[in-house]
Order: sequence, then structure tokens, then C-alpha cells
Amino acid sequence: MLRNVRTTRIEWCDCDPAGIIFYPRYFEIFDTGTTALFERALGMSKIAYLKAYDFAGHPVVETRARFRQPTRFGDDISIETTLVECGESTFKLEHRVSKGGALAVEGFETRVWVKRDAGNPRRMQPQPIPPEVVSRLKQAENEQAKTERADSTI
Amino acid sequence: MLRNVRTTRIEWCDCDPAGIIFYPRYFEIFDTGTTALFERALGMSKIAYLKAYDFAGHPVVETRARFRQPTRFGDDISIETTLVECGESTFKLEHRVSKGGALAVEGFETRVWVKRDAGNPRRMQPQPIPPEVVSRLKQAENEQAKTERADSTI
Amino acid sequence: MLRNVRTTRIEWCDCDPAGIIFYPRYFEIFDTGTTALFERALGMSKIAYLKAYDFAGHPVVETRARFRQPTRFGDDISIETTLVECGESTFKLEHRVSKGGALAVEGFETRVWVKRDAGNPRRMQPQPIPPEVVSRLKQAENEQAKTERADSTI
Amino acid sequence: MLRNVRTTRIEWCDCDPAGIIFYPRYFEIFDTGTTALFERALGMSKIAYLKAYDFAGHPVVETRARFRQPTRFGDDISIETTLVECGESTFKLEHRVSKGGALAVEGFETRVWVKRDAGNPRRMQPQPIPPEVVSRLKQAENEQAKTERADSTI
Repeated sequence: MLRNVRTTRIEWCDCDPAGIIFYPRYFEIFDTGTTALFERALGMSKIAYLKAYDFAGHPVVETRARFRQPTRFGDDISIETTLVECGESTFKLEHRVSKGGALAVEGFETRVWVKRDAGNPRRMQPQPIPPEVVSRLKQAENEQAKTERADSTI
Repeated sequence: MLRNVRTTRIEWCDCDPAGIIFYPRYFEIFDTGTTALFERALGMSKIAYLKAYDFAGHPVVETRARFRQPTRFGDDISIETTLVECGESTFKLEHRVSKGGALAVEGFETRVWVKRDAGNPRRMQPQPIPPEVVSRLKQAENEQAKTERADSTI
Repeated sequence: MLRNVRTTRIEWCDCDPAGIIFYPRYFEIFDTGTTALFERALGMSKIAYLKAYDFAGHPVVETRARFRQPTRFGDDISIETTLVECGESTFKLEHRVSKGGALAVEGFETRVWVKRDAGNPRRMQPQPIPPEVVSRLKQAENEQAKTERADSTI
Repeated sequence: MLRNVRTTRIEWCDCDPAGIIFYPRYFEIFDTGTTALFERALGMSKIAYLKAYDFAGHPVVETRARFRQPTRFGDDISIETTLVECGESTFKLEHRVSKGGALAVEGFETRVWVKRDAGNPRRMQPQPIPPEVVSRLKQAENEQAKTERADSTI
């Protein structure tokens, strides 16, 4: 399964009066993780891939998260995002946030590929994920598998 | 079950480049809805109830949301927050966000009542919900039931 | 000068580990105040006025703020927004945030009326404020002056 | 003058329906830049320096910003933060945000070193910047000057 890891830092601006991260910030982190995975697989920035595939985004239709231990300003975290399922127009991702190697948060989300309605640009309609995107995601996954096999045989 | 309804407006600052609410904002809305329910039941502001019960907050340990239809800047929404379960130190809430009477989002969360650890003020420990808080929540629920019965017999 | 007052509440989600509002939130409050003033003067929501005048928004080109006393979660504040100057394509606003009648924050901003560039929709170009908008702003100001005179003669 | 440069990326979650950064996010970026400068000069994280000097933070009392060109999601920016003045309990910083080498935003701020009032922990009082902090800031500036001289003679 296609995976991407990024790291970031919890900042003062992410924390609440209890001194810990305000949990809605994790969903921003998940969103950025999803973008990063697509950017890497498609080989272009989100602003470019929205244009290239003439689509409006991949809004979340369902999400779930478990918060296992709090993070604080100054904490460096790692976010592993995995594309766990890819349907016709929906796809599922998992995000694992770790701090110092220990799991802090797990996130699960279902997203849908949408286009603007030609008749009403404010309306968005689910759309099959373009074949080119599906094939690039598969290709990225194959390359990842190859790298991992190479790593494991060392 | 104890319930509270508040209304708010989706603003430009809540929306993303797709022109719809950026979904992590809903978790801020859920958080504010939870505070509002407690404030009404306990008859004091959050800053006062944190002090009165010498506790550190009610962080979320698990949350889930389903996004049924997008909202946009300028949309007036209503958020119905219900306390659906109350255990020894954890409790569950549901949030229903509606726009023009139609359900837009459902949120479900489990929170835990925590205190700061005496030895390490940065650590927070689950704590039984104080009996006085439990009894105030029950009392608020009873009053609500009475008002509802009175309303339904008109 | 055209003025609008709105009230809001500082919430937990607006505050930082010092327990006070995280000051960038004030700029969100100023932005919402500007929108509210235009919505009232033009008699339509921002989503409608962006469409009606085919424009892309009124981004801030310069801003300044003085923070006189902190606000905290649970504080009810009042924001008075005044249109203090209106040029050909730029205009200036002042925002006064009060808590319990005492001035908490002053904000000053210069904004510019922009349109999307026809050749490159990602580029935005300053544009003269449409005459209809200018005349509606003047009309709203005249009505306000009349109401104020009426109030002062009671 | 003591300086620190950090880089970050504008994300989808930072942008508004016009597709550009929502300008209050810049003040979060300035705040993080200020923290980064202090962390480097004092050789410890903010959570550690708040504790080491038993202080409550360095809230902004006045700020000003000029927005010269917009940034968009996917833009990599660089933020140069300079400590331009250091008084007894207040200090001034400048932030220069650049994109692709071109200046995008300038920020100016005055901050004050505060302590919690012993009698009322919710009140914060300006406090002289501790001599140890002043001397560490000077030392960091001297080291920077040495490095720059060395660089310029190559």
C-alpha cells in the first residue's frame, strides 16, 4: 500500500490553554499528509494536480481518530499516511502520528474525488478517479515495493 | 438525555480554496458545543468550572464525523449537542450540525475528565467525574425533560 | 462614517497555552467585521456580493493592531468596525474590540478591491470600486447619520 | 542584529476561498519565527525557556504588516526574523517573508516579557528581561557577527 511520511513540529499556535495540541489541528495535519502523498505519487503540487485533472479536490466524507497521548509545542512528530483502499470515486487513508517513536494519534478517513458541476460551479459532484491518476498511484506503489524489497535484502 | 443547541455562522476564515468549510473547523465547532452544554448544566463559564472542580479539561480520546453536505461562508448553522453517555471518568457526546433544517454533519466523541498530576503538572490523569458535576448534569436533564413534557402537552 | 457593530465570544479554540487569545485570531475577527459591514451596507451576503460585482475579494495590503488588554475564553466582546476612508480602489477600516465596555484591541487596515485577471485567473488586479458599491456605502452612511440624529434629539 | 531564518510551506489549510493565504496565518508564522529565534539564542525549546526563566511568554503589544504579493498553497517560503531592538522589558522584531527570493510580506512587532502575577495567576505583568537572557542574546549576536565576517572574507 502506498505510503508517505512527513515530519513537522507542534507549535505554540497549535496548542490550547491546557498546553497541549488542540485536537482539531490533527485533522489539518491529516489533510496535509493526504496532499503530500498525492503530490509525491502524481509528481506535482496540489495546485498543479487540481488543474491537471480539472477537479475540485478530495473532500472528506467520513473521518475517525483516536488520541493516545497528547503532544505539546516543541514536539517533533512524524506522520505516516497510507492509502489503504481505492474505489471508483472514493478512497481511504490512514494516518499514524508518532512522537519519539511512540504512537500518539491514529486517523482514518474516507475521501471522495469531486468535480465542479458544469451547470452550477458551487456544486461539487463525485467523479470516478481518472485512470491516469489510478495508474500513477499503482506505479508509485510498485516503486515503493521494489525499494522496500531492496532494503530488506541488504 | 441532556441537550444544548447553539447557532453560529460559517465565515470566510473557516473556508478553504474549494470555497467550502475546511472540515477541521467542525471539530472546533464540536468543542465549543461541548463547552456550551457543560456551561449551561453547571451554570458557570468554562474558565469558572475548570477552577471550581480543579480540573484540567475534558480532552477528546476518540472522535468520528460524517460530512453529509458542505457548508459555505455566510451559512447559518445550528449545532445540537447531546450528552449520550456518562461513565465514571469518560463521557460521550453527539453533535448534529444542520443548515436550513437539513442535517449537514454528525459528530461523535468520547471525552475524559482529567486532572493535572500533582507530581508533574504537565501530565494529565483521568479522574472520576466529581459527584457534584454528575448530579448537576442529572438535574439539568430532569429540568429539560419537564420543559419538554410541558411543551408537548400544549 | 459607516460603522457596524457585532458581538462574539472568545472560545477555548481561540486561546493559547498562556490561557489568553492567540493574537492572530483578532485578525480573523477584523476580517469578519469587515465582511459584516459590507454585507449590511450592500444588503447581501459576501458570497452574493462577490458574485454580484464579479470580484475576487478585498484583500488586506497593510494592517496594524495595538493590544491593550488580553481577552480569555468565555469573554464576550464587541467589535466596532468603521469605514474611515474610501479611495478609488483602496479603502481603510478601523476595528475597536471592547470587553465589558473597556477597549481591548485596536485594528487598522487598508484593503484593495480586486478582480481576477481575465488572462490568468490566479492573478488578482486592483480595480476601481464599482460606482454602485460606492453609492450604496454612501446611502448606508446617510441612513446611519439620520438614525443617529433622531436618537440624539430624543 | 540577531537574526534567524526558517522555511515553511503554505498549505491548503492556510488558504481561503480566494485561493491565497488567509492573511492572519502570517501572524502565526511571525509568532513561530519569534519562538525559533529565541530557541536558537537560548539553546532550548520554548517549553523549556518558559520554565527556566519562570515566565509566561512574550505577548505582542503592537504589530504591523505589509502584504506585497500573495502566497498560495504549495508555495515554499522563507521567513527571516530579526531582533531589531531590545529594551528593559520590551523588544522589537521584524519578519521578512520571501517566496522565490522576492519579498512577499513584512511584519513588525513589539513584544513584552511578562510574568504571572503572584497574587493572581491569571494576570500577567511586564517584567525586566532577565540579565542571563539579555547576555545570551548578545552572545548569539556576537557569534553571528563572527560567522558573517568569516563568510565575507572568503
